[in-house]
Amino acid sequence: MTVPPPTGRLYGIGLGPGDPELLTVKAVRLIQSAPVVGYFAKAGRRGNARGIVDRWMTGNAEELPLYYPMTTEHAFDSPVYVTVLAAFYQNAVAAIASHLDAGRDVALLSEGDPLFYGSFMHLYMRLRSQYKVTLVPGVTGMAGCWAAAAEPMTWGDDTLLVASGTLPLSGLIERLRGADAAVIMKLGRNFAKVRIAVQEAGLLSRAIYVERGTMENEIVVPLAEKTDDTAPYFSLILIPGQGRRP
Amino acid sequence: MTVPPPTGRLYGIGLGPGDPELLTVKAVRLIQSAPVVGYFAKAGRRGNARGIVDRWMTGNAEELPLYYPMTTEHAFDSPVYVTVLAAFYQNAVAAIASHLDAGRDVALLSEGDPLFYGSFMHLYMRLRSQYKVTLVPGVTGMAGCWAAAAEPMTWGDDTLLVASGTLPLSGLIERLRGADAAVIMKLGRNFAKVRIAVQEAGLLSRAIYVERGTMENEIVVPLAEKTDDTAPYFSLILIPGQGRRP
Repeated sequence: MTVPPPTGRLYGIGLGPGDPELLTVKAVRLIQSAPVVGYFAKAGRRGNARGIVDRWMTGNAEELPLYYPMTTEHAFDSPVYVTVLAAFYQNAVAAIASHLDAGRDVALLSEGDPLFYGSFMHLYMRLRSQYKVTLVPGVTGMAGCWAAAAEPMTWGDDTLLVASGTLPLSGLIERLRGADAAVIMKLGRNFAKVRIAVQEAGLLSRAIYVERGTMENEIVVPLAEKTDDTAPYFSLILIPGQGRRP
Repeated sequence: MTVPPPTGRLYGIGLGPGDPELLTVKAVRLIQSAPVVGYFAKAGRRGNARGIVDRWMTGNAEELPLYYPMTTEHAFDSPVYVTVLAAFYQNAVAAIASHLDAGRDVALLSEGDPLFYGSFMHLYMRLRSQYKVTLVPGVTGMAGCWAAAAEPMTWGDDTLLVASGTLPLSGLIERLRGADAAVIMKLGRNFAKVRIAVQEAGLLSRAIYVERGTMENEIVVPLAEKTDDTAPYFSLILIPGQGRRP
């Protein structure tokens, strides 16, 4: 009788905001030693995560791309979308588990930080009770954006609010009014609404729009000077704090 | 006539949450190439920042420790404290400027991320109009702590609140009630008050206390099971979000 190998370990690895040099030393080491490297991508694309690690890949790992289903035709809270996405996660979990069961470690890549709005978390919650997991925190996208804007975000006792542009207008305004500093993510089709919320909360003159922070084609512009309503996935609005300064 | 050298560049470098492997590749490269490496420390101590980079120092750089004045005998908002601290920052700026004026780049270390509650910001604001600056974002202390706790922090549309334990009790409770996920920093002597605020906001059962996350002697414990009121500088409370999950 052969003894089965011990199961592999899952690594959840934060890749940082986009600049390949903003991976941590630990992330690079683990990506280069893992026999399997998994990452999310849109069908037919290589994906942002795979692009960020390109210079760090040794060519020795088996790559496991996890292709998102095309979902643009369904609203994110529709029953169809939820069903399609749940099936996608279940298939991704099965693909990863088959490697882990065969004793192969899997490094699963996550843009930014793996536990901060990351798709990684959906797989992690389904795998963590059965497998050993190591989590490697990363530089968040928002930290990359405020470095690109070169503006201190929070001072002393400042409260920071991180909110999604998907919130209703009244909820956004209310939350923004109570914050000293704020980050608004998930702009996309919510951009025009978010701009109104920032203005209504009296924060337009302090707000900065950042697109693709730390990446080659980054854009930093005062929100008041951005005249169009186009905002891709990798964009957010920063409202730096103005707290106590000795 | 000799031409003066071009002035040096200031690097504001995030060191991450404490594990020396959680520096970014870019941070290590810049620390190893800088002729001068500056860092904050308490008088008579080497300081946490210098400890984190110990394995990365080549021995070729001039070290510029910036020793904080002893301030425990004054409240942080007392006029004496503000005056003493302003003088300290002014002296630190002068020491850094003399290197930059002589054409030497200075890498100034910052635990966590340099623009997120960092002392670095006080020097940066006094230097940025006169010198070239490069900012290198880092993994925040809070991201290190939620990786240590192994808990996803924010899902989908979750709102994240980052608040300081120095806020008054009523303000803390009010802000916590409006958040889906929260991080409370600066515990120290505010710990007992913060625990009451978490309980009053109905969040005690979800709250996690993390001390020295990603460092060798890290502690992760449910807040409800922490029976003493001692919390050092490197500690915080996490309340993970519970947002929408397909």
